[in-house]
Amino acid sequence: MNTEGIASIYKAAQARICKELETADGAGTFREEKWEKPIGGGLTRKLVNGKLLEKAAVNFSQVAGAVTPALEKLLAVKASRYSATGISSIIHPKNPFVPVIHLNVRYFETDSGQRWFGGGIDLTPHYVEVEEAAAFHHSLKKLCDHFDLSFYPRFKAWADDYFYLPHRQETRGVGGIFFDRLEPADECVFRRYLRFTVELAMLYPRLYNEILQRKAALPYTETHRKWQQFRRGRYVEFNLIYDRGTRFGLESGGRTESILLSLPPLAEWDPDFLPQPGSAEKESLEWLKKDINWIEKLSAHE
Amino acid sequence: MNTEGIASIYKAAQARICKELETADGAGTFREEKWEKPIGGGLTRKLVNGKLLEKAAVNFSQVAGAVTPALEKLLAVKASRYSATGISSIIHPKNPFVPVIHLNVRYFETDSGQRWFGGGIDLTPHYVEVEEAAAFHHSLKKLCDHFDLSFYPRFKAWADDYFYLPHRQETRGVGGIFFDRLEPADECVFRRYLRFTVELAMLYPRLYNEILQRKAALPYTETHRKWQQFRRGRYVEFNLIYDRGTRFGLESGGRTESILLSLPPLAEWDPDFLPQPGSAEKESLEWLKKDINWIEKLSAHE
Repeated sequence: MNTEGIASIYKAAQARICKELETADGAGTFREEKWEKPIGGGLTRKLVNGKLLEKAAVNFSQVAGAVTPALEKLLAVKASRYSATGISSIIHPKNPFVPVIHLNVRYFETDSGQRWFGGGIDLTPHYVEVEEAAAFHHSLKKLCDHFDLSFYPRFKAWADDYFYLPHRQETRGVGGIFFDRLEPADECVFRRYLRFTVELAMLYPRLYNEILQRKAALPYTETHRKWQQFRRGRYVEFNLIYDRGTRFGLESGGRTESILLSLPPLAEWDPDFLPQPGSAEKESLEWLKKDINWIEKLSAHE
Repeated sequence: MNTEGIASIYKAAQARICKELETADGAGTFREEKWEKPIGGGLTRKLVNGKLLEKAAVNFSQVAGAVTPALEKLLAVKASRYSATGISSIIHPKNPFVPVIHLNVRYFETDSGQRWFGGGIDLTPHYVEVEEAAAFHHSLKKLCDHFDLSFYPRFKAWADDYFYLPHRQETRGVGGIFFDRLEPADECVFRRYLRFTVELAMLYPRLYNEILQRKAALPYTETHRKWQQFRRGRYVEFNLIYDRGTRFGLESGGRTESILLSLPPLAEWDPDFLPQPGSAEKESLEWLKKDINWIEKLSAHE
C-alpha cells in the first residue's frame, strides 16, 4: 500500500504550511502535539493568539484499521483493512474583515486495491468582499486547470453543495473546491492526483497570506467583532452537524482535541440579532448562496 | 387522536412555566413568536438578558405529517400519519454558579393507534455542588415515586446514558431523568402518564427558582465566567452532535430559530486551557460521570 509514502509527503507539507503561516503572522509560533491512539497517530500543530491569527490548526494524521460493516456501508468498499492519511487545517483570524479559511487533503486505500484522494479548500468571510472571493476562485481554477480542465467546474459545484447549512439555507461562505473519491486509473494518474493535493496544500498558506497582507491591519469596531462571533456560531453549527470529517473523526475514535481544534475561540448566538437592511452584514448574508460564478465577477472588473 | 387535547394542556403549562420564571427572574419578560410551517406550528417564548437569566427559551409546538419510510425506521412505527406535541425549554443563567437546566415533555401518536409520552429534565452545573445535585435528584425521585416506583431508577439511568458526550467521556452535567416511548396500556394509565409529564413540567421552574434564590446573587469573577463559557462549549457540542430532539427538529423541517434557541449566548473553545489540579473547575469535571447515586449523598449529610 502507498499510505506510508504519502503520509511522509503530507507531513512535510504540513511543516511547510506551518512555516509559511508563521511568517505571515509575524509573531506566533506553532506548537506541536504528537498523539497515538489505537486507530493510529498524528501530529497536531496549533498557533493560538498570534499577532494576526487568533487560532490556527494544522493537523496531520495517519490511521489504519479494520473495515467494519459500518465503514463498508459508509464508504462502499469491499475490503478487510484500510489505511488513510491527511492534512486538515482551519484558521480563525483576529480581524473580522479577514475570512476564515479551511483546507483538507486526504488519501484512502484498502487492502483490496481501492484507493482515492479527497480534499478541498473553502473561504468563509465574515464580511463578503466580491473581489476577494473572485480572486480566490480564480487562483483555485488556475491550479485545477493545470491538472485537469474538468476539475474546477466539478469541484466548485461540489463545494457549493458540501459547505451548505440546509437549516439556515446559507452556504458556509463563498465556497472554493471540494472533491472526494478521486480514483486514479493508473500510476501516472495516481502521481498526478497526489501532486494536485500537495500543490493545493501549498497554495493554501499563500492565498491566505495575500489576504492577510491586504486586510489584517484594517481598523474594526466592537460591532464588527460581534458579527464575527455570530458568524463563528454558524461555523460551529456546520462543523458539528454536517461536516463528515468531524463526524467520522469523532465516531471512528480519533483524537477529540485535534478534531475540535476547528472550532472558533468564541462563538455567539443571539436570537434577537437581525442585521439592518443595507448594512454590510446584511449584504454579506445575501452572498451566501450556491451557484455564484465568482470568476465572472472578477473579469467584469478587469 | 388525542394530540389536540394534549397540545392545549401543554400550551397552558408553557404559559405557567414562563410566568413562574418571570417571577423568579424579577425583571425579564418572555416575548412570543408564533410560527407556522408545513409540518405544523408552535409558540416560541424567549427571555433574553433578564436580571438572573441570560437566555431562557420555553418552546411549545404541535406538528403532524406523513410517516415517511425514514420516520418509520427511526421510530419503529407502522402507520401512515403521525401527530406530536411537546414543550422544550433550556435556561442559561448569568451567574456561573447557577447551573443550566433543561426540560422536555412530549406526546406522539399515529393513526394506527400507537401512542406514547417522552421527556426528561437534567441539570448542567458549571460548578458541580453535591448538595444541589442530590436535592435535585431527590425532588425528581419524589415526583416519580408518586406515579410509579420503577420510574426514577429507570429514568435516572436512562438520563446518564442519554446526556453523555462519548468524545469527551463526560456526562453533560449531573443528570436527572430521561424517558421515551412510555406507552400507556389503557385510558387510566394514559391519564396517569399525561399527569406525570405535566407535573414534571410544573416542577421544573420551581426547582430552578430554588437554585436561583440560593445562588444567583453569589459574587463571581472573570475566571468563573470564562469557565462558564468553556462549559457552554460542551453544551453546544452535545446539542449539535448528539441531541436527538435537535437533529430530528432540524431534519424534519422544524423552525431553526426555535430549535437552536437552546444554544448558549456565548461559548468558548480554548485548546490550551487545562483546569489546575485541586481547583473547583477540576473538581467539577470529576463529577461528570455516569452511575453516581446522588440521593445517597443527600442522606449522608442528613
